[in-house]
Amino acid sequence: MVEEYLATLDFAADDPREREEMAGTEGLVEAMRHSLLAGGKRIRPVLALATCQSLGRPPEDLLPAAAAIELVHTYSLIHDDLPAMDDDDLRRGRPTCHVLYGEDTAILAGDALFAEAVRLVCERQPGGPEARVGILHEISRATGVGGMVGGQYLDLKDAGRESAAALRRVHALKTGRLMACAVHCALVLARPAPDVDRALRDFARELGLLFQIVDDILDVEGSEADMGKAVGGDARRGKVTYVSTHGVEGARRLAGEAHSRALAALEGLPGDTADLVGITDLTFARHH
Amino acid sequence: MVEEYLATLDFAADDPREREEMAGTEGLVEAMRHSLLAGGKRIRPVLALATCQSLGRPPEDLLPAAAAIELVHTYSLIHDDLPAMDDDDLRRGRPTCHVLYGEDTAILAGDALFAEAVRLVCERQPGGPEARVGILHEISRATGVGGMVGGQYLDLKDAGRESAAALRRVHALKTGRLMACAVHCALVLARPAPDVDRALRDFARELGLLFQIVDDILDVEGSEADMGKAVGGDARRGKVTYVSTHGVEGARRLAGEAHSRALAALEGLPGDTADLVGITDLTFARHH
Repeated sequence: MVEEYLATLDFAADDPREREEMAGTEGLVEAMRHSLLAGGKRIRPVLALATCQSLGRPPEDLLPAAAAIELVHTYSLIHDDLPAMDDDDLRRGRPTCHVLYGEDTAILAGDALFAEAVRLVCERQPGGPEARVGILHEISRATGVGGMVGGQYLDLKDAGRESAAALRRVHALKTGRLMACAVHCALVLARPAPDVDRALRDFARELGLLFQIVDDILDVEGSEADMGKAVGGDARRGKVTYVSTHGVEGARRLAGEAHSRALAALEGLPGDTADLVGITDLTFARHH
Repeated sequence: MVEEYLATLDFAADDPREREEMAGTEGLVEAMRHSLLAGGKRIRPVLALATCQSLGRPPEDLLPAAAAIELVHTYSLIHDDLPAMDDDDLRRGRPTCHVLYGEDTAILAGDALFAEAVRLVCERQPGGPEARVGILHEISRATGVGGMVGGQYLDLKDAGRESAAALRRVHALKTGRLMACAVHCALVLARPAPDVDRALRDFARELGLLFQIVDDILDVEGSEADMGKAVGGDARRGKVTYVSTHGVEGARRLAGEAHSRALAALEGLPGDTADLVGITDLTFARHH
């Protein structure tokens, strides 16, 4: 459902006159769609829809917000891959955006994806203005100084080096916040009882942590085919990871603990949490 | 009023626990504030507040949206100045963001300013969820593929070279849309009668055009002290401008025409349009 929805996005204006004025931007849209439709696990949107379903609402009610989160995630990958940042040539098995379209277009493609994510929620998200603002609030908090971009800055400045707690904090901002945002958007739309809300927020935090630990393990142990990018990049760049601080065995243990805590948070929830359990197990199983 | 409001923005989270997690992002915030508080005419926020006032609403009711537009404008300047884009070292008389803080931090500072602009509207804009979503819709349309970023892409690809109409279209997207957005946000908040709405939209379009023509003239005729950046940059880069296509005299004539049409649009409006007239005259007078 997510993949089909993303494929329909062409970022054209509804108004015919505005659409005419956009003539010549096709190359920009191509760069955006190249990165957006490069496959990937779609874990954030899938997580958003599964949470929505567990709360008794049709998952398609959250499709625009779920897609917006994937647009934001894609923009962050494009900017992270830039020469001035991580300087990666390969992503999900394909040349990165700046390799194919140039650095200037890649910067703009990222910028435009962010704007189009906001527009998507404003124009298509069900639930009325209150749900739309609530969702945009979650997305903006998850991506600003106190979220994804702040975490990327900390990572850049090697802030995770100081201690295991510091590493956990960097990742909580850099990847955890946007992952949790997927769950939070469903909460904004469905407004469950406070105890359900709290349990799903705990779940989101643990799943984000699990995802990051597994990612660090895979960077050491995964194959290039599995990862769609060069492995061992973190070590080459001298990056602090859960493996560099805890060793592979230690990281595996941490992953097991996060996995257990994520599942524990789901226990006793009233709705159908089968998909959320499935996502958690799959995330954990990736490193086996 | 705008300047003071912008100076108060520190992008810290309200929640004390979240604020704690942001430790270490001070350098990012410094880069954002360096660019945000570098002076400048603040024409977009001032225009937003003046429109609000002309519609009989206290201008401070639009301060968060007006500030958000300035945050977005600042992010676009930071990214435009990057080595991969226009490669400018000087902006408003000060070193550009990437010169002072590095390219990586500059990219992130721009990204974070965009996210924080959205958060600002979600958290502080008066008028309820409907006004907030309406304003974010205007901002996202003005900045995406059919707006500022699309226009920057067209400019990069020299799309303005083909004809005078093409040049006008590039600038309508690149600078006109965000300028018009300042007026539109006031319309979203105050919801005037359709004829007033239409007249102010016409005004916004003509003012944006006037601003761009004058900017092109100043790039040739202005002094470095006036502009706060190296002059003649457009010509050096071989950029298409109103001066390169129409000559200085031709551009002056076009500016005069846009000035007249902008003022004509304001005539007969019910509210106090003195500030809007003043902004229009000042914009026009800059090239004398």
